[in-house]
Amino acid sequence: MIKITLPDGSVREYNSGITAMEVAKDISEGFARNVISAKFNTNTIETSTELTTDGNLILYTWKDDEGKNAFRHSSSHVLAQALEELYPGVKLSIGPAIENGFYYDVDLGDQTISEKDFKKIEDKMLEIARGKHEFKMRAVSKTEALEKYKQEGNEYKVELIENLEDGTITFCDHDTFSDLCRGGHIPNTGIIKAVKIMSVAGAYWRGDENNKQLTRVYGTSFPKQKELKEYLELLEEAKKRDHRKLGKELGLFTFSSRVGQGLPLWLPKGAALRERLEQFLKKAQKKAGYEMVVTPHIGQKELYVTSGHYAKYGEDSFQPINTPADGEEFLLKPMNCPHHCEIYNNNPWSYRDLPKRYAEFGTVYRYEQSGELHGLTRVRGFTQDDAHIFCTPDQLDEEFKKVVDLVLYVFGSLGFENFTAQVSIRDPKKPEKYIGEAKNWEKAEKAIINAAKDKELNFVIEEGEAAFYGPKLDFMVKDALGRSWQLGTIQVDYNLPERFDLTYKGSDNELHRPVMIHRAPFGSLERFIAILLEHTGGNFPLWLMPEQAIILSISEKYEKYAEKVLNLLENNEIRALADHRNETIGKKIREAEMNKFPFIIIVGEQEEKDGTISVRKHGGENIGTVNIEAFSNIIKEEIDKTLKKFDV
Amino acid sequence: MIKITLPDGSVREYNSGITAMEVAKDISEGFARNVISAKFNTNTIETSTELTTDGNLILYTWKDDEGKNAFRHSSSHVLAQALEELYPGVKLSIGPAIENGFYYDVDLGDQTISEKDFKKIEDKMLEIARGKHEFKMRAVSKTEALEKYKQEGNEYKVELIENLEDGTITFCDHDTFSDLCRGGHIPNTGIIKAVKIMSVAGAYWRGDENNKQLTRVYGTSFPKQKELKEYLELLEEAKKRDHRKLGKELGLFTFSSRVGQGLPLWLPKGAALRERLEQFLKKAQKKAGYEMVVTPHIGQKELYVTSGHYAKYGEDSFQPINTPADGEEFLLKPMNCPHHCEIYNNNPWSYRDLPKRYAEFGTVYRYEQSGELHGLTRVRGFTQDDAHIFCTPDQLDEEFKKVVDLVLYVFGSLGFENFTAQVSIRDPKKPEKYIGEAKNWEKAEKAIINAAKDKELNFVIEEGEAAFYGPKLDFMVKDALGRSWQLGTIQVDYNLPERFDLTYKGSDNELHRPVMIHRAPFGSLERFIAILLEHTGGNFPLWLMPEQAIILSISEKYEKYAEKVLNLLENNEIRALADHRNETIGKKIREAEMNKFPFIIIVGEQEEKDGTISVRKHGGENIGTVNIEAFSNIIKEEIDKTLKKFDV
Repeated sequence: MIKITLPDGSVREYNSGITAMEVAKDISEGFARNVISAKFNTNTIETSTELTTDGNLILYTWKDDEGKNAFRHSSSHVLAQALEELYPGVKLSIGPAIENGFYYDVDLGDQTISEKDFKKIEDKMLEIARGKHEFKMRAVSKTEALEKYKQEGNEYKVELIENLEDGTITFCDHDTFSDLCRGGHIPNTGIIKAVKIMSVAGAYWRGDENNKQLTRVYGTSFPKQKELKEYLELLEEAKKRDHRKLGKELGLFTFSSRVGQGLPLWLPKGAALRERLEQFLKKAQKKAGYEMVVTPHIGQKELYVTSGHYAKYGEDSFQPINTPADGEEFLLKPMNCPHHCEIYNNNPWSYRDLPKRYAEFGTVYRYEQSGELHGLTRVRGFTQDDAHIFCTPDQLDEEFKKVVDLVLYVFGSLGFENFTAQVSIRDPKKPEKYIGEAKNWEKAEKAIINAAKDKELNFVIEEGEAAFYGPKLDFMVKDALGRSWQLGTIQVDYNLPERFDLTYKGSDNELHRPVMIHRAPFGSLERFIAILLEHTGGNFPLWLMPEQAIILSISEKYEKYAEKVLNLLENNEIRALADHRNETIGKKIREAEMNKFPFIIIVGEQEEKDGTISVRKHGGENIGTVNIEAFSNIIKEEIDKTLKKFDV
Repeated sequence: MIKITLPDGSVREYNSGITAMEVAKDISEGFARNVISAKFNTNTIETSTELTTDGNLILYTWKDDEGKNAFRHSSSHVLAQALEELYPGVKLSIGPAIENGFYYDVDLGDQTISEKDFKKIEDKMLEIARGKHEFKMRAVSKTEALEKYKQEGNEYKVELIENLEDGTITFCDHDTFSDLCRGGHIPNTGIIKAVKIMSVAGAYWRGDENNKQLTRVYGTSFPKQKELKEYLELLEEAKKRDHRKLGKELGLFTFSSRVGQGLPLWLPKGAALRERLEQFLKKAQKKAGYEMVVTPHIGQKELYVTSGHYAKYGEDSFQPINTPADGEEFLLKPMNCPHHCEIYNNNPWSYRDLPKRYAEFGTVYRYEQSGELHGLTRVRGFTQDDAHIFCTPDQLDEEFKKVVDLVLYVFGSLGFENFTAQVSIRDPKKPEKYIGEAKNWEKAEKAIINAAKDKELNFVIEEGEAAFYGPKLDFMVKDALGRSWQLGTIQVDYNLPERFDLTYKGSDNELHRPVMIHRAPFGSLERFIAILLEHTGGNFPLWLMPEQAIILSISEKYEKYAEKVLNLLENNEIRALADHRNETIGKKIREAEMNKFPFIIIVGEQEEKDGTISVRKHGGENIGTVNIEAFSNIIKEEIDKTLKKFDV
């Protein structure tokens, strides 16, 4: 008899040799129908694997990431079989599951795959899937494994096997197909109901450009046709919402090859958006007791040697600027912290003066490889909504909570309702990896966990994920398309106060080290705006919209009245534009829709006569004819729905 | 008979041989008493010089710069005589007039001059002055001149004379003293009534550090004791108002040797001041139809080669940042214009879209030599309140006027009432020095002169002072101590539109070049704040003050009422602070005065009972007991006195 512990802590006894799937069926037949993969203790197993010792068993369904992973991994086997059948002589190399799908890198010899072949491959895969072939693991000796692939002339698999230890080599078989594989499959191919070949690309063997270029076939698969359809629609939507596309359409930013790649130029509408975001955060920060500072974009190399950034950023930062005459060396700043430490150091402080909270929209520069640049999410120059809080260890708990409040206020006001958090703490087994006193680390970790609990965050604790200089809290938001983005970080730092010899005089009249908190709710304006664009498709929360309404006059005759309305709206603090162009009202409405004005106001004879306006919302909803006061109330109510109150 | 033309155009006939002073006496005995120097045609002459040809005569008094110059030059002769008498064996080298005084570089041999000797020198100078010795010019041969100084062993004068042509060598004699001199003196030493030795310093002979170091004795002199006294008081006041001193006292900015010299760090109060200035200008610019943009602080070297800045700034800019891997080269931007040109180039424009007005508070970097750095007025990184207007040649006239309006609004609101302007146009004799079509230059020069006349500026036109790329208008302001500062510039540019191939489609459907206007009313925030500090002594206009009032509670008992007052003031949009420290009210007032709070509010028992506040102004004026509404009216009236209305 063996004891199997389930995730809920319950323990069940079974005869040794029971399979994971049999345990699932014992729990519930209905549940078992959904189980597609399993984990025993720390090992990924097959659902058909026989359990012979006591241990912890987790059973996964499609809803779990691990379940999806097994599903896609199994699908890559089916893809490989289909390719072998369609492209005789194809040599397989590796084929892992990835986010939202899988791929297989293959050597096609003289053959090629193009988009017109995708249907053929998909059909072949579905044909195989319908066979409901079981995935079965089989152990082989290194000699036997090498023999198979040498015979087939597959140098890739031979190379892979040569790096494996004898005794750990397994194959997975299904139908007539067999592949070198570590395991972790769904029970049989029949569960795969929908497949799609997404694209083909070139990929060097082992990612090394000195090696042969293989063909990478990307695919995805789902347990239901409907889910595939939804996924493809989501992709279409994501393409429409691509921030690079929207940024161009809305005239927010551009790049110039003369200025340099990865260096965005903010056009008037984008600059206004940035300004609005900055003012929004400045206002909240002022309430929360932050003080703004302004520091230069360069510093002597020595500054970054002191801070440790020079050693850390080495190749990722722009190289030093030499001044041959004076022998001074300057660096573009990769971080704002050293400058803020020098500002702290400008005064002697007492514990009564702390915390000091220095904030700056600081533009920093990092030399990303050109191949890694991507729109606004990977750039070479970006503006952090940075702040550094210098406090006593005793203040850390409260300060950390306050920062969490601010981050939640920012997320809430910008429509990110769906997020999780991760608390990164020390690896307790490797204390030598971290700097700072153990008692301070304990205090800091406790402060972060307390804050996370207190603010009812949905969070996980990850041991060993802390930076060497302190523990941290990261936020992951899910956007409207269900994609995850890392946004916002709060970090505790014991390192820089040490390196910059920061002190304050305690109540005991002795000098002490303050603790530093680094924090950036947006992360950077560039990245945040990119994510906000993709999250909202450009339909920003009303309070953030550069223009909240556009006034369209039916004809030139009503231009004067339209201007009067514009004026009244301005008096009500509503940002609006008037479009007096000599175009049809239909064309004006279409363009206003495309430019995502939240409210479209139409004025003509009747409106002028009654002193009213006709209003429709972006998307077509008709609000009807109202007066300015009623309209301004509609706007205010709408804003109150998103822009939260920030109380400290 | 000769014909003498006076500055007013009148022509008088005299016998040949009449002296300048005799002409002065002929004009008016009263006038002649004030005449101290003269110019005949293009030559500086003595008032005793005999005129023997027709020509233009200008007679100068102390009020003229040329008069002051002759006065100080003559004073340096008196200083030299005093030094010869007090320091036997002293060797004279050169002794020119400078702004506000004069100096003489001398070789003292083994002797030294220190501050305690100043009185002795001044007394000796005044003794000489009282002798009313006439300054008389005498021509000598080169041989004779060399003979004199070789005999005296004065290698400096020997070197000077060796570089002169025979026939042009003159000496000036007065009393027992004689010096090599080109001329231009006051009639006699008796006019010098007040002298002051200011300082001594080391100075290399001919400014070459390989030469011997001489002693430079700085002095100043005046025709009245009272004027010297006023000048010394002004210097004292200027020292108190030194922006470096005030910046430290008010906690506005600091420098860090680790960050680097010439790179200011803006402390919270300074950053708030910058923000307020930025918002002030942004608001006016928005009204005037400017659009804000944001651009990176670096650009590819190629960008600046295109713009011509790379060639121009060569040694003054930071050296390129090399990226060995990709071979890209970047420069810290010395100017924002190339980036704004690239933004203009992001869209095709029609004449109907123009003018485009792009504004940015753009931080630029220039590698000033460390010896030339000075507080905030000479720095290596500074933020320009930059804007570039792209318009059609036909729009230039109106656009230029609008920019002048904006500049005048800025000066007016910041208390600079006293300023002059300079229009810099082409040298009509050297058309080859300038780029762009002659008809456009004419248009632009006319536009600037029209604007200057139209806005009733006090301006001069300087031929040949235009930049090679276009004419310009510069503003010189006089601060409260009477010192002149160049502030604000408006430049027309035909060069960059050419270099960046900027175009717009005209009404003729053809492509045309726009004209560019560069403008910066502040110049830079750093320099402007420095000048504003020295102009106001830190007592900024009320609207700009970070805190307009401070509330002092008589004792802890009234802290709650003070907080209530603070709240009411905030509701009235008055920026205030409360000081609840457990200190005497006397000490609190003294500190509030030192920190330059414009209004000091005191609250105690009576005020709480009556719901009033006791108010005194910075400087001690007592306003008495008023309620919040009355106080808020006082503030509003005060603000209206300085912050002008900006109408476009």
